[in-house]
Amino acid sequence: MSKTAAEVDALKQAPDVQGVIPAIRKRWSTRAFADKAIPSETLAKLFEAVRWSASAFNEQPWRFLVGQKGDETYAKILGSLVAFNQLWAGKAPVLILGLTKKTFAHNGNPNGFALYDLGSAAAHLTLQATEFGLHTHSMAGLDADKARAAFNIPEDFAIGAAIALGYQGEPSSLSDEHMLTLEIAPRTRKPLSEIVLKAWETSAGI
Amino acid sequence: MSKTAAEVDALKQAPDVQGVIPAIRKRWSTRAFADKAIPSETLAKLFEAVRWSASAFNEQPWRFLVGQKGDETYAKILGSLVAFNQLWAGKAPVLILGLTKKTFAHNGNPNGFALYDLGSAAAHLTLQATEFGLHTHSMAGLDADKARAAFNIPEDFAIGAAIALGYQGEPSSLSDEHMLTLEIAPRTRKPLSEIVLKAWETSAGI
Repeated sequence: MSKTAAEVDALKQAPDVQGVIPAIRKRWSTRAFADKAIPSETLAKLFEAVRWSASAFNEQPWRFLVGQKGDETYAKILGSLVAFNQLWAGKAPVLILGLTKKTFAHNGNPNGFALYDLGSAAAHLTLQATEFGLHTHSMAGLDADKARAAFNIPEDFAIGAAIALGYQGEPSSLSDEHMLTLEIAPRTRKPLSEIVLKAWETSAGI
Repeated sequence: MSKTAAEVDALKQAPDVQGVIPAIRKRWSTRAFADKAIPSETLAKLFEAVRWSASAFNEQPWRFLVGQKGDETYAKILGSLVAFNQLWAGKAPVLILGLTKKTFAHNGNPNGFALYDLGSAAAHLTLQATEFGLHTHSMAGLDADKARAAFNIPEDFAIGAAIALGYQGEPSSLSDEHMLTLEIAPRTRKPLSEIVLKAWETSAGI
C-alpha cells in the first residue's frame, strides 16, 4: 500500500497511443494535494486555455469562481462540498466552481448546451493544468443550493462541478484508508466498442 | 474575400501563450471540408483520447454514433441537422452524434452531470482531432427529435451536439456568401475578466 507520489502518477497514465495528446493520457484525479501555491501567472495561462473552448453560438456561457487558499471565495467553495470531499480538497491551493448561463445573451432563449459547453471548457482547464504539471480533481459532490446561497448566484446560472487544483502530494498524506485505496487504484474505462456506435447498441467497429 | 485554406487557418489561431497546448490554440470550426476520407486507424486513436475523459462517478455516460460518408449512420445524422448545417456538413467525411446517459448505471439516479461530461469528452475529441491535423465543427443546430426517431435512441439518453469531422478544404468551395464571411472572420472571445470571478460579477483579477 505504500507508494510514492511518482509511483502513483505513473500507474495512473493511460496507455501511450501514438499521437494522443500527452495531457489526455496523463490527466487523473488526485486527492493528495501538496501544500504549494500556484503562481498567478500560471493560473492566468490556464484560463487563457479555457477561454478558447467552443460553445453554441459562441455564447461562452462558462464562468469560473476561483478561490485561492485563505480567501473568502475558497472558503465558500470548500464549505459547499460534501463532507467526504472537504476532507481532502481543503489541501488544494485553488478551488474552482464552474457556472454556466442557462439562456442565450443574444435572444434570451434557453441554452440546451449550457452544461455541455461548461464541461468542454472544464476539459480545457483540466488538460491545460496537466500540461503545466498541475493536478485537478473535478467534483460532482457539492451542495449546489449551498453554493448558490453563499455566492448569491442568479437563477439564470446553473452550477457545474467544483474543481480542486494544485500539485500532487504524497499519497501517505491522505488521512483515510478508503481515500488511499482510491488514490492508488489504476484508472479504468469502457472499451471503445461500448462507446463508439454505428447504430444504437451496435459497435462502430473502428 | 479570397483567402486560401492555409491563410484562414492561420488567422483563426488564438494568441500563442507560452505553455498552452497547441491544439487548444489551433482548434476552430471550419465549414469548408475537403473531400478526403479519414483512415480508420486515425478514428480509433481519436476515440482513444475521448475514452480517458473524466466523468462523475466514472460513469462515462458518453456514446458516439459515428457515420462515415456513404453509410446509413452518416445519412441519418446529416438528415437530422438543420437546413443551414446540411448545406456544408455533407462534405465532411465523418459525422458524429454525441449521446449521454441521463441516469447512473450504479443506482439509476438522475445524473446531473450527463451533458457536462459529454461536453468534456467532446472537447477531448475536438482537441485530439486538431492534434491529428483534422478539423471539427460542433453543431447545436440539429433536430434532436428527428435524430432520436432515426436511431431509435432510448429516452434514458440525451442528445448532445453533432460534430462534423474531416480535413479543412478551400474556403472558395463554400457555396454561400454568409458561410464564406463566417469562414474568414477571426475568432473572438470574452476577456478573462468576464469569466474568471472572485465573487459574483467581480473579476478574480488573475
